[in-house]
Amino acid sequence: MAVYTDVSDEDISRFVAEYDIGDVVSFKGIAEGVENTNFLLQTTKAPYILTLYEKRVNPDDLPFYLGLMDHLSAKGLNCPTPIHGKDGVALRRLCGRPAAITSFLQGMSPRRIQPHHCAGVGAALAELHSAGQDFEMHLPNALSIKGWRSLFDSCAEHADDVEPGLGKMIGEELAFLEENWPHALPKGVIHADLFPDNVFFFPNKEAVSGLIDFYFACNDLFCYDVAICMNAWCFEPDNSFNVTKAKNLLSHYSKVRPLSDVEKAALPILARGASLRFLLTRLYDWVNTPKDALVTPKNPREYINKLRFHQRVENATAYGLD
Amino acid sequence: MAVYTDVSDEDISRFVAEYDIGDVVSFKGIAEGVENTNFLLQTTKAPYILTLYEKRVNPDDLPFYLGLMDHLSAKGLNCPTPIHGKDGVALRRLCGRPAAITSFLQGMSPRRIQPHHCAGVGAALAELHSAGQDFEMHLPNALSIKGWRSLFDSCAEHADDVEPGLGKMIGEELAFLEENWPHALPKGVIHADLFPDNVFFFPNKEAVSGLIDFYFACNDLFCYDVAICMNAWCFEPDNSFNVTKAKNLLSHYSKVRPLSDVEKAALPILARGASLRFLLTRLYDWVNTPKDALVTPKNPREYINKLRFHQRVENATAYGLD
Repeated sequence: MAVYTDVSDEDISRFVAEYDIGDVVSFKGIAEGVENTNFLLQTTKAPYILTLYEKRVNPDDLPFYLGLMDHLSAKGLNCPTPIHGKDGVALRRLCGRPAAITSFLQGMSPRRIQPHHCAGVGAALAELHSAGQDFEMHLPNALSIKGWRSLFDSCAEHADDVEPGLGKMIGEELAFLEENWPHALPKGVIHADLFPDNVFFFPNKEAVSGLIDFYFACNDLFCYDVAICMNAWCFEPDNSFNVTKAKNLLSHYSKVRPLSDVEKAALPILARGASLRFLLTRLYDWVNTPKDALVTPKNPREYINKLRFHQRVENATAYGLD
Repeated sequence: MAVYTDVSDEDISRFVAEYDIGDVVSFKGIAEGVENTNFLLQTTKAPYILTLYEKRVNPDDLPFYLGLMDHLSAKGLNCPTPIHGKDGVALRRLCGRPAAITSFLQGMSPRRIQPHHCAGVGAALAELHSAGQDFEMHLPNALSIKGWRSLFDSCAEHADDVEPGLGKMIGEELAFLEENWPHALPKGVIHADLFPDNVFFFPNKEAVSGLIDFYFACNDLFCYDVAICMNAWCFEPDNSFNVTKAKNLLSHYSKVRPLSDVEKAALPILARGASLRFLLTRLYDWVNTPKDALVTPKNPREYINKLRFHQRVENATAYGLD
């Protein structure tokens, strides 16, 4: 959680006047998102979210993200809908930063993941993949397999500080994945960061009430997104793999967008790649975050364990697939 | 800003079920208050604030604070109204901490203080003092003049690290105040922390839309509360004193609760006391806050300058009083 940029009452009043959304009645910094500053903005019309894009988001990519949310909302997906100003423009500036107002989504992120959450998120991910298929903009995945080697090179010397032998393990895994990556699988718009923080539910309901935080979305393999999700939702806090959760996730995904046999066969290697991607970014942040930072970096260890699990998997039946 | 305690979706759903306020539809940690953890809780009925009381609040004092908010709300003052559970109890427990749900107040804290804000806060403070007069509970001010010496003793050795000679200056001021404090002035319930963060306005409106954060409220001299407010609202960011703002604050206060001649005459010494109180607590926090704390302590210097200003004041005409 972090509010990096303070916005004055005068600034927000002036900013809101550029929209046709009524007048501000309340405005509070919220502990949501670690990359950007988010405010809950209540106007005389409705609640909204105001996001100020901080330095980790490339401003050149914002039209893709906002365009995607516009596209997905129009398709009926529950995601933040960018609100356009009176001049039709959604991406604006506030306090020297790119900024946008989006609709407010009801629901809460689950803290303790239940099997029914995995069913819901599987279906929602497939709906996202389907709804994004006719989106016309294109953004390559900056954190795809092509980007991992340079990321590793920039922090390899510190890898063994996290765990002895980690540098060697990552090097070998990277070589294996570069050799065997299934580049030819079905592609499209993926979320690429569909962790529980970014998925809202109503209490005791299976269906997802909304997806947020599309600021890692890009074009890549659909099934790689499934693998990211499986890593994020199907391991227990003690690092054990919960096959019931995986089965729920994959079967509810497949009901909306069936996985081909080639995709199923590729799941173990995609899951290894998804583990390595988060291991590498966490390692990078671990090494590079100053001790007095607003945000505590996440421990890379969790993803070492996930990678080891998938390295031992022989085929997708380990994930509950037939 | 800080969210010290994480509350799971399951915990909040269970907790809300103890009230008759509908079901949870959204729940977000907010950057409001530095002592406690606050959440904006949206139910099917209305928005509310959930507060978890962290270690700096004495649990024994919570019945006073919540009782006071109940009392003031019943008198028509715009302040958070404690919501009582189905069993009638407002002060409950959540995640191992005392916790309470209160009503949600509209409006925003002003960042750049305008003279009209000072008029509004003056009137609101007097309304608070009047409305509190028949409140039956009593809580002595733990940070009154009687508490300053022990506070100073606990951090005196580090005073000169902030500014050479500061220890001597504080010692002399403390002796002067102990000798001359006007203990016999009118007393009652005071807010004791009415800084701009704790006062909400609607854009471009003079009238206060709500007062929050009653967790320093206590029984003490009304006019001491006026002096705290004057310090918090009438100095410019460059430490200059804005007499127009003070005149607005004092004249709008007096329209609701007239200041006696004795109170007016005592304002300079009360303002010195109010400066010393915040100088001492900021010095204490400055010395005692670990470098990796979630909250950055406020610099004590600001209150050294305020104290110096009031030491040079001969009488209350310097504050714009006739």
